[in-house]
Order: sequence, then C-alpha cells, then structure tokens
Amino acid sequence: MQHALAVTRAGDFSAWYQAVVDQADLAEESGVRGCMIIRPWGYGVWQRMQEILDRRFRETGHENCYFPLFIPLSYIAREAEHVEGFAKEMAVVTHHRLKMIDGVLQPDPDAKLEEPLIVRPTSETVIGAAFHRWIRSHRDLPLLLNQWANVVRWEMRPRLFLRTSEFLWQEGHTAHATAQDAREETARMLEVYRSFAEDVLAMPVVAGEKPAHERFPGADNTYSIEAMMQDGKALQAGTAHYLGTNFAEAQNIRYQTEAGDLAFAHTTSWGVSTRLVGGVVMTHGDDDGLRLPPIVAPRQIVLIPMLRDKPEDAGVLEFCEALATELNRAQAFGEPVRALVDRKPGRAIDKRWTWIKRGVPLICDIGARDVASGNVTYIRRDQLRSGEKIQSQAVPRQQFVAEVSALLGSIHSALHESAKQRLVANIRTDIASFAALTEYFRSAEEDFRGWVRLAWARPEGEALAKVEQQLKSLKLTVRNAPLDQAPITDQRCAFSGEAAREYVLVGRSY
Amino acid sequence: MQHALAVTRAGDFSAWYQAVVDQADLAEESGVRGCMIIRPWGYGVWQRMQEILDRRFRETGHENCYFPLFIPLSYIAREAEHVEGFAKEMAVVTHHRLKMIDGVLQPDPDAKLEEPLIVRPTSETVIGAAFHRWIRSHRDLPLLLNQWANVVRWEMRPRLFLRTSEFLWQEGHTAHATAQDAREETARMLEVYRSFAEDVLAMPVVAGEKPAHERFPGADNTYSIEAMMQDGKALQAGTAHYLGTNFAEAQNIRYQTEAGDLAFAHTTSWGVSTRLVGGVVMTHGDDDGLRLPPIVAPRQIVLIPMLRDKPEDAGVLEFCEALATELNRAQAFGEPVRALVDRKPGRAIDKRWTWIKRGVPLICDIGARDVASGNVTYIRRDQLRSGEKIQSQAVPRQQFVAEVSALLGSIHSALHESAKQRLVANIRTDIASFAALTEYFRSAEEDFRGWVRLAWARPEGEALAKVEQQLKSLKLTVRNAPLDQAPITDQRCAFSGEAAREYVLVGRSY
Repeated sequence: MQHALAVTRAGDFSAWYQAVVDQADLAEESGVRGCMIIRPWGYGVWQRMQEILDRRFRETGHENCYFPLFIPLSYIAREAEHVEGFAKEMAVVTHHRLKMIDGVLQPDPDAKLEEPLIVRPTSETVIGAAFHRWIRSHRDLPLLLNQWANVVRWEMRPRLFLRTSEFLWQEGHTAHATAQDAREETARMLEVYRSFAEDVLAMPVVAGEKPAHERFPGADNTYSIEAMMQDGKALQAGTAHYLGTNFAEAQNIRYQTEAGDLAFAHTTSWGVSTRLVGGVVMTHGDDDGLRLPPIVAPRQIVLIPMLRDKPEDAGVLEFCEALATELNRAQAFGEPVRALVDRKPGRAIDKRWTWIKRGVPLICDIGARDVASGNVTYIRRDQLRSGEKIQSQAVPRQQFVAEVSALLGSIHSALHESAKQRLVANIRTDIASFAALTEYFRSAEEDFRGWVRLAWARPEGEALAKVEQQLKSLKLTVRNAPLDQAPITDQRCAFSGEAAREYVLVGRSY
Repeated sequence: MQHALAVTRAGDFSAWYQAVVDQADLAEESGVRGCMIIRPWGYGVWQRMQEILDRRFRETGHENCYFPLFIPLSYIAREAEHVEGFAKEMAVVTHHRLKMIDGVLQPDPDAKLEEPLIVRPTSETVIGAAFHRWIRSHRDLPLLLNQWANVVRWEMRPRLFLRTSEFLWQEGHTAHATAQDAREETARMLEVYRSFAEDVLAMPVVAGEKPAHERFPGADNTYSIEAMMQDGKALQAGTAHYLGTNFAEAQNIRYQTEAGDLAFAHTTSWGVSTRLVGGVVMTHGDDDGLRLPPIVAPRQIVLIPMLRDKPEDAGVLEFCEALATELNRAQAFGEPVRALVDRKPGRAIDKRWTWIKRGVPLICDIGARDVASGNVTYIRRDQLRSGEKIQSQAVPRQQFVAEVSALLGSIHSALHESAKQRLVANIRTDIASFAALTEYFRSAEEDFRGWVRLAWARPEGEALAKVEQQLKSLKLTVRNAPLDQAPITDQRCAFSGEAAREYVLVGRSY
C-alpha cells in the first residue's frame, strides 16, 4: 500500500519518527548542535498544551513567575556537594563580551566573568534562594509557583523533541508547612499531568512512583506518568517530586510555625516539556503522518476550496468562508472550534496531503458540486483509509455544523481508545523471573515487546544496584510502580525470590 | 501628606521607581548580576500583555515559532562584518560540561566548545539562516513569524524592567516579495504597537521614524513609539524595522519571482519587551504605588472581607464569594471580569494597602454593615484620595455589578486622559535654535523638562554626527520624527539654519 511517508513504522520506527516530525512541519535541526527550530505547526501544538496546562495550574492555585536564565556556578556547586550522581552536562557562560582581535571576533579576554554562569538545567537552586528570602512565617505557606522557560542540558545524541540540548518546559516549585501538604501537592500535580495526558492528548499513561535509583537527585519520592509508544517503548511524559526538607535544609528555607518555632519547609517540583510533542507523534502518528488529538490541534478543521479558474470559484470560496465562520462560532471541548480555509496558492490535492501529514482531525475538500448540493465532504484523519482507499463522507452542511462538536469528540475518543488498547494489551503479567524476562527481551531491540509487569521485593542499596545492572544488560529500566495497585500477596520477587512487596513496570524507553 | 511609599516622584523619581517595583511585588534583583526575578504580580501583568499582543499578531496573519537560544559565533561574526557599531556585550558559552577538579567544580577543560556559542541578543541571524532554507518561490511569501523568547544583552548599569541583562520579549521577523509589502508590514506592526500602548496600556505615545544614527544596525528605516514618563523623559516602548534587502543579501534569502527570476526578499523585524512593564509604572504610578490600566491588571477588582472573629464573618465571606462569582460572569473590554476575594490571613487594612500599592483598579472592603445594607463600598485606585483622605463610594450591590464594566472603562479612560494631557502639555514647540535649546535644558538633569519639538534639515553624515554630539552635551537624543506631520514650510533647521525638512522630538530618555 502506498502511504504519504517514504518509511513506515514497521519498517524503521526511528526513521518514521523523523519523517513525521519533518513532513508535519513540526520542527527541524537548527544547525546549532542539539538545538531545534520549532516550526509554526509544532509550536502551535505546544502553545495549545501551554494554554490548557496554564489554566489547570491556575485552577489549582499556582501563580506564574520568571527566574533568571543564568545560575551562578557557586549555587550549582552547593548542589553538587549534596547530590551524588549530579549531572554535569551544562552550558557554561565564561565571558560577557566579544572583541575583534586581529580581524577575528572572539571572546574578549578582558571580559572574563569572575564567576562562570550556568545556563539553567532546572531552577531548584535559584528558586530555593528566593524561597529563603520570601518565606518567613507559616502565613507565607503554601507558596505555589510555576514558570514557563527554556532550559539547557547538553545532549550528545539529540533527537527532535525527545532529547534536545535546549527545550521548553514548565517547572512548578512549591513550599509547604507540612510533609502531608507537600505530598498532597505532589499527588495533585501528578494527577493534573495524568488527566492532561489522557483527556487532552488522548495519550493513555500509567501514573506511579519511580524506584529509588530513578529518583530526581535530592527527592524523597519521584512520581511519573509513563506512556507506551507504538514501538512498545516507554516515554516518561511528566514527573512530580516530593523533595522533603532536603532542598530546604541545603538552602535554609525556614518558617516560623504558629507555635513560634522555626521549621524547615517541605518542597515539591514538577514539570513537563516539549518532549510531549514527540509523545503525541509516537502515540498517534500513522504511516501517513501525524494524527493530532483535536484539543491540541492548532486547527481542528481545514477547508480546502477546489478551484478551477472558472466562474464557480467565487461561489466555492464564499461557501468555504461562510462555513468556516459558522464552524468557528460552534463550540467543542468548551472552546470555540478552530477552522481554517486554506486559500494559499497550490493544487487542492497537494494541500489535502499537507494537512493529512500535519494531522488535522477533519479535512474537507470543497468543490462546486458541494456548493450546488449543499453538502460537506469530510475526511476523518483518524479513519483515513478503508483498505487502500481514502475514505470520505458527505453530509448536509447544517448537519456537519450541528455535529462538529460530537465529531471532534469522537475523534478524540477513538484515538484514546486505540492507544489505550495497545497499552493494556502489551503489558505482560505472566513473567515471574529474571530468566523468563531475559528470554522475552532477548530479541532485537527493534522488535515490539511492550512492557512487563514484575513483582519485586523493592530492593535497596546493593541489591537494587544489582537489579539495575541486570535490567541494563537487557536495555531495560524500571518505569514505575503503578499507583493504586492492590496489596500484593503470595508473590515472589522476580530478582531475589523473596516475598514481593509491589508490582513494577519494566520496559525499554526513550 | 502621608503616602504609602517612603519616597515621592517629586522627591527622587529614580528611588520612587524602585520603591514601586518593590512594593507592588513586580520584580526584584536575583543575585545574578543584571538578571531580575519577575514576581507573580509583575509576571501577571506581562502575561496579560502577551495574551493581547499574541492575539493581535495572529489577527494580522503571524504565526509563532521558536528558534534556538544559542547562536554560533560565526553567524554573529558575519553580522559584525556587515554592521558598523555592532554591539558586542553578549554572554558567551565556551564549555558544555562542569567537572570537579581538586574538589572545585569548574568548566571542564576537555569540554571546551570548538566554536563558542552566543546567548541570543536578538535572532535576525539564526532566523535569516532558516529563511534562506525555507524561501524558494514567491508562493512562500510573505513569511510572517513571531517568537516569544528571552534574550541577553550584558548591562553594566541594570535597572529592573528598563535595562536588564536578560529580558523577555517578542520578536517578529517577516520576509516579503516587494519593498512595498515589507514597508506596509512595518507600518502595520508599528500601528499594532501604538494602538496597544494607547488602548490597552492607557499609555499615550508618539509614533515616528528614528533618525539615521538611531537606526537598528542594518535597517533601512527604524520606527518607534515613544512614551513620556512622569519625569519628562522618553521611553522607547517598541520598534519596527524595515530591513530592506540588507539581511537578505548578507544571508542569501532569495526567491523565484513569478517571471522566473531570482530576487532578494525584503525583510522586517519588530519587538516589544518586559520594558513595557517599567513604562506602565512610570506612566501611571503615583506616590501610593502602582496604578494598573484595567485591561492588563491580573486582578481588576479585589474584595477584602473585614472579619472580626464573630458569627457575622461567615455571612461576610459568603457575600464576597457570591459577589466575586457574579462579577466574574460580567464582561469588561470584551473579556470576563477578573475579581478576587482576598482570603489570606492578615488584617483587612494591611491588605487594602497591599492592593493599593499593587495598583488594582477597584478595591472593596466588605464588612458586616455592607452585607446588612446590600451595598458595595469601593475605592477607585485612580481616584484614591480627596485631599488627604482616602475616597470611597457605596452603591447598591446590583448597581455595582451592572456598572462594573463602565467603571473599569472609565478608569482606563481617566488614566489615559491624564497621561495624554501630560504628554501634550509638555512638548515645547517654541524653541528654534540650539542656543535656546541649551538654555532650556541647562538645569539639573532631574528637573522636569519634557520634550522639545524642533525643526531640522534632516542632516546626514558629518553634519548629523555634529548634531548628535551637540545634543549629547545636553544629554539629549532625537526620539523620532512623528509620522503624519504636515509638510513643513518656512522653518529653519535649529542646528544649521538651513531650510527645515521635518520636525523631530528631542528629549532625555531611558
């Protein structure tokens, strides 16, 4: 079967991913190593994600603010002392001026900074320093902040959206009087992420706690949502950390209690990033390109006028514009519908494929015949083909407008349902030993394997390090221990044979 | 008279500005030289500006995208070769890793970048490189992009919002087939800025063209909007540049014309930044703190329950919440009203002053007496005092809700009118020679002088350099030549005595 992309998911998933990102005009390499250009269509998806998350953060009591891009080396050094396994791949600013010397523009030796500055990899240190200044009394708590920002972590093997040296994200940072409050906040934000992934991105996820060795450095507990991509690998799509009083102690964030004592605040942090765009591609894309969940599609409906340089053209354009106006007055998902008439020059058939590859949920070719009959012929991107044939449906225009909200809702549900089935069907629960796990994952890394749910004894210290190594030999990691699992009984740890304490998911991952 | 701030505008304008920024919780020094922390209230104002501008950019056909934070030194060097007077105060990244050496965390000598990276001071070079790749045919034009980003220009004498090493802004970048299209775009975006300043920020501005020596390096024409602050100085509040084919030639941005020839594209760029927040402070603030134009106020109305630890408290809170709900269902300026009940712990009188200093347009203290009478007592922040006394008005609750939109509109108009009168009244038009100008500006720099409208011969080259020096001796600059001025006749140039060609505004500036 002939598809819009030159590569298929089954043929080469990694090349397919690159092709979708490219052909859907999402992003491209910038020429600056590891940094991407997010093109308007890709940025439009990210901006939709921002709008919706921003609203949800506000509704849960958070306020936005902005902290500096640069962090003094001494702040980072303080952190490094406290944190073992502290990542050091960071962009370091050492000069503040360029100078033309012997005809060559270069860092001015006279403008060397006394203290190097680090381009923020995350902002706990600089925000913690502000918390230290701002928090005096229990009345100042909880302090609930969020920032939208760019961050930099040097990447040796960058991949667009999934792993780039610079990426865009939001980072929530909060301080609380008690452990319970901070734990509740962590759970609340994990739930915001879970619900956002499922209800907005149509991306089913498993929310759970990371094992000790996968925690954010300095966290007491790290939680994640994990999504299954179409190659069976896991994508960590969002994390929330309960930081205990670790950061508060390192940065002296204390408050006066009602009783008049001084106590350390309990802090949290949580974030999602432009990586989510990559997650949407690998969750919903098909061999014809991207398929966008309607809530984050910058345009939900594109009307393509089929013009023939004939007198009827004016009527076709008029029909399209009137229809778009009517659609944009309708509501879907509690917001105005976003319809566009594609009036750019070019052939209608080329435009159709452009929007198919970009993943627009509903695409309508409108010709003189539609105008005459008063019908709208539409393609549902999530049901593009029937066999090899492109599938379209014609309905009376008023019916199309009346049903557009339900139609978009149904596309969301269909995408979610299909991804949900894949997730549920591909978590094996019948593997009970490391030997069986080895047998299962022995095949080529490209083969679809999904995840395995294992019972384990929640090892610590050296025992955990050994498990980590065993899994690593199969290119596996523990993704998380799903929340809300029933108490485990009568099971043995797949690694040690001891009594198991919980189930964890293991899989290959991005 | 006792005011909320310890310093007054008349006493020390610069200290007053710092006090407002501090006491209104807008921003603070971060400890990282030249970089500020934008606090939630200040960020809320900026986010409102973003939302409104973003909508206007979209309505004028622009799409958002995102380009890398880092620009290779070679891109900048190419620019430096072309541009005389090229600013070189930039943050330079030279290493991509930290390493602990002898117990000291430092840039890893083994991770020195082959080519230093510059933290973007503006993105013409990196966006131009993308335009070169993206633009092939006249069908690709116009290309209308915008990005919201942080940029860095090293500042030796930073001031919060007005001049910081890192700031937030938007930068529009467009490419067009013809000079006329690009000029129209430049004019269109200047008008977007002018209208935004006046209709949204209530900040009157003069739109005009910058003289040759104040142009953006590489621009054929630079236009600005200039606002008059309460100390009489000018604040350049936004700029739009027609770049001709200069950048296209330097970066080989060419397209195939309809006739099949290759032609250079005409490009533009335009931007406004967080500096606008400083402009709002210095345009509208008074000796009691900030006064926010209602459209950008994160909260337009704050309801302060006056609680007395008595049984009536529940009724007061209920009244406040019900009123806030009703207000938030009302519309002002085409959007839902933004009202807040301040339920934080603390004394009502302290809260009142917090919100006065933060500049909330309408502040309501609500007590048991108001609940009993069904009245709402409100303070208009723009008419805070009558003599020394704080001025408030009581109206029936339903009337308050019914009139809130008109009330907010009236506050906007009053702020705009007052600033407009100051601007109009303080442009002197009776100074006709440099000697008279010297006489007028001889006094201390702190004295209020406003601007002077001068006729000049639009000097070029050496003559212009001389004028620039003359003005500089008085700490003056040419702000712009106002657009839409009537043709000048029978006037002599204030500097050369030649026949004048246009009027320009001169003044001291930020």
